[in-house]
Amino acid sequence: MLLSVLYIIGITAEAMTGAMSAGRRKMDWFGVMLVASATAIGGGTIRDILLGHYPLGWVENPQFLAITCIAGVLTTGIAKWIVKLKGLFIRLDALGLIVFSIIGTKIALGMGLHALICMVSALVTGVFGGLLRDLICRQTPLVLHEELYASVALASSGLYLVLINFSVNDVTATIITLVAGYTLRMAAVRYNWRLPSFNYDTETPFH
Amino acid sequence: MLLSVLYIIGITAEAMTGAMSAGRRKMDWFGVMLVASATAIGGGTIRDILLGHYPLGWVENPQFLAITCIAGVLTTGIAKWIVKLKGLFIRLDALGLIVFSIIGTKIALGMGLHALICMVSALVTGVFGGLLRDLICRQTPLVLHEELYASVALASSGLYLVLINFSVNDVTATIITLVAGYTLRMAAVRYNWRLPSFNYDTETPFH
Amino acid sequence: MLLSVLYIIGITAEAMTGAMSAGRRKMDWFGVMLVASATAIGGGTIRDILLGHYPLGWVENPQFLAITCIAGVLTTGIAKWIVKLKGLFIRLDALGLIVFSIIGTKIALGMGLHALICMVSALVTGVFGGLLRDLICRQTPLVLHEELYASVALASSGLYLVLINFSVNDVTATIITLVAGYTLRMAAVRYNWRLPSFNYDTETPFH
Repeated sequence: MLLSVLYIIGITAEAMTGAMSAGRRKMDWFGVMLVASATAIGGGTIRDILLGHYPLGWVENPQFLAITCIAGVLTTGIAKWIVKLKGLFIRLDALGLIVFSIIGTKIALGMGLHALICMVSALVTGVFGGLLRDLICRQTPLVLHEELYASVALASSGLYLVLINFSVNDVTATIITLVAGYTLRMAAVRYNWRLPSFNYDTETPFH
Repeated sequence: MLLSVLYIIGITAEAMTGAMSAGRRKMDWFGVMLVASATAIGGGTIRDILLGHYPLGWVENPQFLAITCIAGVLTTGIAKWIVKLKGLFIRLDALGLIVFSIIGTKIALGMGLHALICMVSALVTGVFGGLLRDLICRQTPLVLHEELYASVALASSGLYLVLINFSVNDVTATIITLVAGYTLRMAAVRYNWRLPSFNYDTETPFH
Repeated sequence: MLLSVLYIIGITAEAMTGAMSAGRRKMDWFGVMLVASATAIGGGTIRDILLGHYPLGWVENPQFLAITCIAGVLTTGIAKWIVKLKGLFIRLDALGLIVFSIIGTKIALGMGLHALICMVSALVTGVFGGLLRDLICRQTPLVLHEELYASVALASSGLYLVLINFSVNDVTATIITLVAGYTLRMAAVRYNWRLPSFNYDTETPFH
């Protein structure tokens, strides 16, 4: 229940960031809805396809798709205000990341999959929507060289799995993971924590 | 039956436009066949994956794949003539768009899905092949900022659903949708009808 | 058994080439693991999704995913040596291509699919990992305009199918295909054999 409310907040915020990227590419309303939806529910879609977990969430509950399309189009009218709310969006995005990660973990867990795959499921749910957005808008995916992001999804998923494994009840495990994951992500943004990066500048591609 | 004939005309024409894009990227014959096939049957493939509708059309009927590969390679030999036939290809593309949309709608309808998902199914079938082509050939997807295209897929699907809902028989509904959808698309091309576009030029990406 | 050992060698080598591409884009460790895994097991993943062949290989055997992630991160520490071993990597890549092609053929054959689809399955398994790598790293896909590569996957798959059809036992057919396919690929690299390419330079995209 808590997770459902947070999920709707999360996809709305992600849809709006997707729409902003579409605006930088001068897309029309269809493009805006496409990028908004891909950003918000693309991660969950790719997860379900990889796990063979049918029907997809938005196919079963089309209202989620309607929400992301409406949020995307609304964004075109209030873009100036959204830019000023960047601080809020960073917080909502952090919240969405943890919510998506917990949902991804729970779905894989419910299918009886290996803990490593549960963590991959969290990662895909939390991160691949933004990757899709950057791919469609032809931006270099920020998640691949910015502050800790994918790592936060993995860490949150791992924490949730440990808690469940120690027989902590689901609601408590969810709340602890939400608080810890959100705190980790916001700390990473504030203190600019990054993974080591790999910069190998060969003249020609190495294949 | 009518729909099958039109479908084959549609995938042949789409395969040829895909091959032309591959030519601009100096691809070899394999690349030409890949882009031709992705353009022609990629939309239906993505639709079937999203809906969990297996086996995929071309896996069950490999001749469709053979047609798109052959059409792609033939295009390399007659590219000069094809460029002169641009007017014909715009018409064939419009026809293909409506045929793909009706097929997408019928498949989702046959799976008992919500009307909104039937329209999404039409959209994906009609539009995502071209998106794939532009992604592989690294062109900014035209469908996202040109004349009404995705909207025509949605409108055609909606019209077909309304007709079926009012107990119009399938053949009649198909023909009415074909004529109305084709007319709408050609009018959009002629009179340059577009969706409003969203142009928000921030210095840095907003994530 | 032989095929399993060669498969592990193949995905390790492919993961390392993927990591090198990630290094050219200055990605962080997560990006390196993502591109390494996409390169090594992305082809098989796309094949399984297209064929509806669930669960995916790495979902069932997470150790394959662990291998590609570890190989990717190790690569960041030994990149200078890897560049000097380019000749070795070309050989390992050729070996991997044939191994992936045989595995792809066998899976489709086991599902009772048409010979043409078995060859497509080989092609997707062998080639699409590299395509994914180039897409994520925003490089023009080399497979689309370099020496015979996709054609080698198709030829190897066709040879294996012919041998099986003539009742050659599986181990013999596998070894013959490995030797013949590897030789063909290395000859193509040495003598620079290519498919004809299609270069049509229109001013504007033709859609």
